[in-house]
Amino acid sequence: MSTSAGKEGGGSFGRVAIFGPGLIGGSVALALRARCPKTAISIWGRNRACLEEVMKRGLADAVHTDPATAVADADLVVLCTPIGTMQELAASIAPHLAPGTVVTDAGSVKACVVAQLEPLLGKQFVGAHPMAGSERSGLAAARSNLFEGAPCLVTPTEASDVHALERVRAFWISLGARITEMPPAAHDRLVARLSHLPHAVAFALVNLVADSLPEGAGLLAGGSFHDATRVAASDPGLWTGILSENRHEVVAALRETSQLLNSLAQHLEEARNDSILDFLTRAKEHRTSLLFPAPEETL
Amino acid sequence: MSTSAGKEGGGSFGRVAIFGPGLIGGSVALALRARCPKTAISIWGRNRACLEEVMKRGLADAVHTDPATAVADADLVVLCTPIGTMQELAASIAPHLAPGTVVTDAGSVKACVVAQLEPLLGKQFVGAHPMAGSERSGLAAARSNLFEGAPCLVTPTEASDVHALERVRAFWISLGARITEMPPAAHDRLVARLSHLPHAVAFALVNLVADSLPEGAGLLAGGSFHDATRVAASDPGLWTGILSENRHEVVAALRETSQLLNSLAQHLEEARNDSILDFLTRAKEHRTSLLFPAPEETL
Repeated sequence: MSTSAGKEGGGSFGRVAIFGPGLIGGSVALALRARCPKTAISIWGRNRACLEEVMKRGLADAVHTDPATAVADADLVVLCTPIGTMQELAASIAPHLAPGTVVTDAGSVKACVVAQLEPLLGKQFVGAHPMAGSERSGLAAARSNLFEGAPCLVTPTEASDVHALERVRAFWISLGARITEMPPAAHDRLVARLSHLPHAVAFALVNLVADSLPEGAGLLAGGSFHDATRVAASDPGLWTGILSENRHEVVAALRETSQLLNSLAQHLEEARNDSILDFLTRAKEHRTSLLFPAPEETL
Repeated sequence: MSTSAGKEGGGSFGRVAIFGPGLIGGSVALALRARCPKTAISIWGRNRACLEEVMKRGLADAVHTDPATAVADADLVVLCTPIGTMQELAASIAPHLAPGTVVTDAGSVKACVVAQLEPLLGKQFVGAHPMAGSERSGLAAARSNLFEGAPCLVTPTEASDVHALERVRAFWISLGARITEMPPAAHDRLVARLSHLPHAVAFALVNLVADSLPEGAGLLAGGSFHDATRVAASDPGLWTGILSENRHEVVAALRETSQLLNSLAQHLEEARNDSILDFLTRAKEHRTSLLFPAPEETL
């Protein structure tokens, strides 16, 4: 795991083709406009009304519903569509990419995406995962500073071209992100625990309360419940996809958490207050240590 | 469960004795100074340095280390000490209370506190739990607006004096809280799920990550992990006490959560995406419904 801090942008990436004008794709376009204004942007999408909105807001110089024309003359292609659509999209653009065109993506799961896309796109593809998001989705939620200070995990493989890797790193750094490199499998294990698990737990906590307390009890929820369940307002379809695509690591994380909660319950039943105090003290130390900086310092 | 909205304060509660100048007790004093400036305040504490700080900040008209003198001439006594200390304190003040003196507390667990204190303090005692707090503790974290808009659960029993109940309600309303009345047992079930469970889960999520990811991985945590684990920085001793005192309901909530996470893991393993989508959709609907208003609207 190697990390490098974000630097200011300001350069140009020539012609960038963004696939999927949602929260991430829209924010990529906004950030490019704000930080690399000389970059030409073309945006591919399926929904014509959404593409009209893209043009109305000046987010792209051209919009396309045909993948082949969207990547014509592109120096860099950024796939910001749902993970389930990427393989098909990659297959449809592969024959139309110029030899030097670099491709990256913003998918929140990497092992399966890289395994699917590398054979189609070759060594010019380098996967990435900007860890920035919101419980809101869609173009309306996009903002130019979404990636500022956010971690971006870049997941090259042994097959990756070193220059393509450099372009992909430079690209996300230009949008304000802090780059950490790691293999796709290590990425999936990490995000299962740092992102997918807290999302799954948030959904579970809300359902537990809805099923076990009288109607209106939620009005009495304090800050801890609100914070822990904020992301339960996330898009269910999108998150069904994310959890499923990272199935192997998410299942492991869920079962480990389940076990931890059971053993905490057992400590409580057996009145083993020393063990509980140890458990809580260890968590507080880790949470307040440099390993977990204050929210202001990261996303 | 009956709820009434907070009203503006401004009146006086005569002489109020606050036990425990920590986050809650200190905030009670600050709120009284701000909202009911005619109220005379005496504060009891064990730590002389802390009591000096209380006087220096003008939070009390008198400070005491002797419980008996602290309650002399008090119209209202507010116990803001850790739950484990309340029975002993109640026993030490009981002989010194004037006949009309009303006693309330701010303990976050109610069935055991009420069962312990009611026999000692009689019908003039009415338990309460202002659901306001912070991952920080101690007098330094106290603030005058801690209770503004916060729910306060008041837990009278059949033995409670109706006038004492009215005084206790009026007191917490004067500090800005919104009152909901319920029996002590219903309170414990509710807070186990809305507060104690998210705290326990926060501690567990941090320990899981600390144990299973390389050092420094926490730096890559995004908003969902930060929010879900914010309260893992809470005081371990205090929370060992709270979880233990509400043992019965916390164990039930932990086991139910553990089961929910396991069944989600099983759905993932069996690729039952429809069940996952249902689970997530139901959570999102509850989370965004009026049952769980936006954080701005509650604590």
